[in-house]
Amino acid sequence: MQPTTQSDIEIAEEMAEAAREAILPFFRQTNLETANKLADGFDPVTVADRAAEQAMRDVLARRRPDDGVLGEEFGAHTGTSGRTWVLDPIDGTRGFISGTPTWGVLIALSDQDGPFMGVIDQPYIGERFVGSSSGAHMTGPQGTRRMRTRDTRALDQATLFTTFPEVGTPKDRAGFQAVSEQVQLTRYGMDCYAYALLAAGQADLVIEAGLNSYDIQAPIAVIQAAGGIVTDWQGGPAHQGGRALAAANADLHAAALEILRQF
Amino acid sequence: MQPTTQSDIEIAEEMAEAAREAILPFFRQTNLETANKLADGFDPVTVADRAAEQAMRDVLARRRPDDGVLGEEFGAHTGTSGRTWVLDPIDGTRGFISGTPTWGVLIALSDQDGPFMGVIDQPYIGERFVGSSSGAHMTGPQGTRRMRTRDTRALDQATLFTTFPEVGTPKDRAGFQAVSEQVQLTRYGMDCYAYALLAAGQADLVIEAGLNSYDIQAPIAVIQAAGGIVTDWQGGPAHQGGRALAAANADLHAAALEILRQF
Repeated sequence: MQPTTQSDIEIAEEMAEAAREAILPFFRQTNLETANKLADGFDPVTVADRAAEQAMRDVLARRRPDDGVLGEEFGAHTGTSGRTWVLDPIDGTRGFISGTPTWGVLIALSDQDGPFMGVIDQPYIGERFVGSSSGAHMTGPQGTRRMRTRDTRALDQATLFTTFPEVGTPKDRAGFQAVSEQVQLTRYGMDCYAYALLAAGQADLVIEAGLNSYDIQAPIAVIQAAGGIVTDWQGGPAHQGGRALAAANADLHAAALEILRQF
Repeated sequence: MQPTTQSDIEIAEEMAEAAREAILPFFRQTNLETANKLADGFDPVTVADRAAEQAMRDVLARRRPDDGVLGEEFGAHTGTSGRTWVLDPIDGTRGFISGTPTWGVLIALSDQDGPFMGVIDQPYIGERFVGSSSGAHMTGPQGTRRMRTRDTRALDQATLFTTFPEVGTPKDRAGFQAVSEQVQLTRYGMDCYAYALLAAGQADLVIEAGLNSYDIQAPIAVIQAAGGIVTDWQGGPAHQGGRALAAANADLHAAALEILRQF
């Protein structure tokens, strides 16, 4: 993992703050309230998404003009530094539009080998999960804590999170289902918050499919910094998107991968 | 709905505060940290559950000694006032043990006709949803707001929450699935928080089965106070538990009930 400078983390936190400010006025507004603000015809989540990505890009334009940017809303800007900021201003739009505090702002900093710093931010709860070469920590209602993934060693003791049955092809779902049948508890509907819980030592596995690179780069950096492992379903790099398996430790990762490889 | 006195609401809020204090030290603790506190052999959620119910019963013993109490952990105490407090100190234990902020403290006040005041409290986020004859309001990260259910009129525009596929018999699941196929969006894994979101105008339907009375009485009171409807799958009272259909308004309730009646 590339060394992260304190300045990298400060910039990422400044971006997360800017995104929070841009998004929160649109979260859980009733139709009436938001209708007045939306003369341009976009829905609230689209407006919030774009405003947040623009706010984050503004921070980068000022503080890191030589870095590249890849964002969900405004595409790719190639930099000259060899480093790229990968942004998903609102990951989990289904969660956002149904009021659940499970969506997040995703910020990753990557080089040719993949992401080496990441932030998962949940603005409504006021929680932020940060991972880098200096370690992993979270801030939220219970203050600031270091994060460390769990040492659960066997599938039959593991808690699995997923976005299935909402997403994925039938074959993807079959792979997820095969692991789900082996674990102690499967929980649904947590969007990117599931990766944060895994990093924070509250869950053991996350299995998803159909991801874009900006959906998974920040989770990869946060989870790796906390001691976990994220790969695709063949054990290769996951940072280009597609299918992802996140695990709290190497033993669990190997056990789940043995099943998923068959799909 | 029986008129609620200001004192009823104050007592319920005092109970919710006491439950928060009892539970939060046990939420998201790592194995190591909680092991030291758990010499009696119980798991953290059981210890927190019992401590919270005892704390709430202590408030009632002091302030409402003549009222009855029905709680998940310590059973029923018959009162002389004709009013019963119905308590679930941690509703959503699967959510609790996996770190998701979707569990809640449920407090209802009921008479022979069912619950007429309810509180759904989410201690980690610091959110409280209250419903009574004086209306419905919530307090949380965005301050205090009145709550009103949505006016979505058709199933194909509705957002449905459920605890399926985790709970229920195959027949229960078939009923849920039949409605799920008609709605715009189905979301999972929200435990009692789903009822709070419905009351707050963020969702349109909640369908569950296998409930106990203490799981559903507070949601009934909160949702009814916000303008919604909660019944069983035949359109009868739901406050004794079993299967529940919660809807934002009468039109949606009728549309979903027409499907569920067949199961």
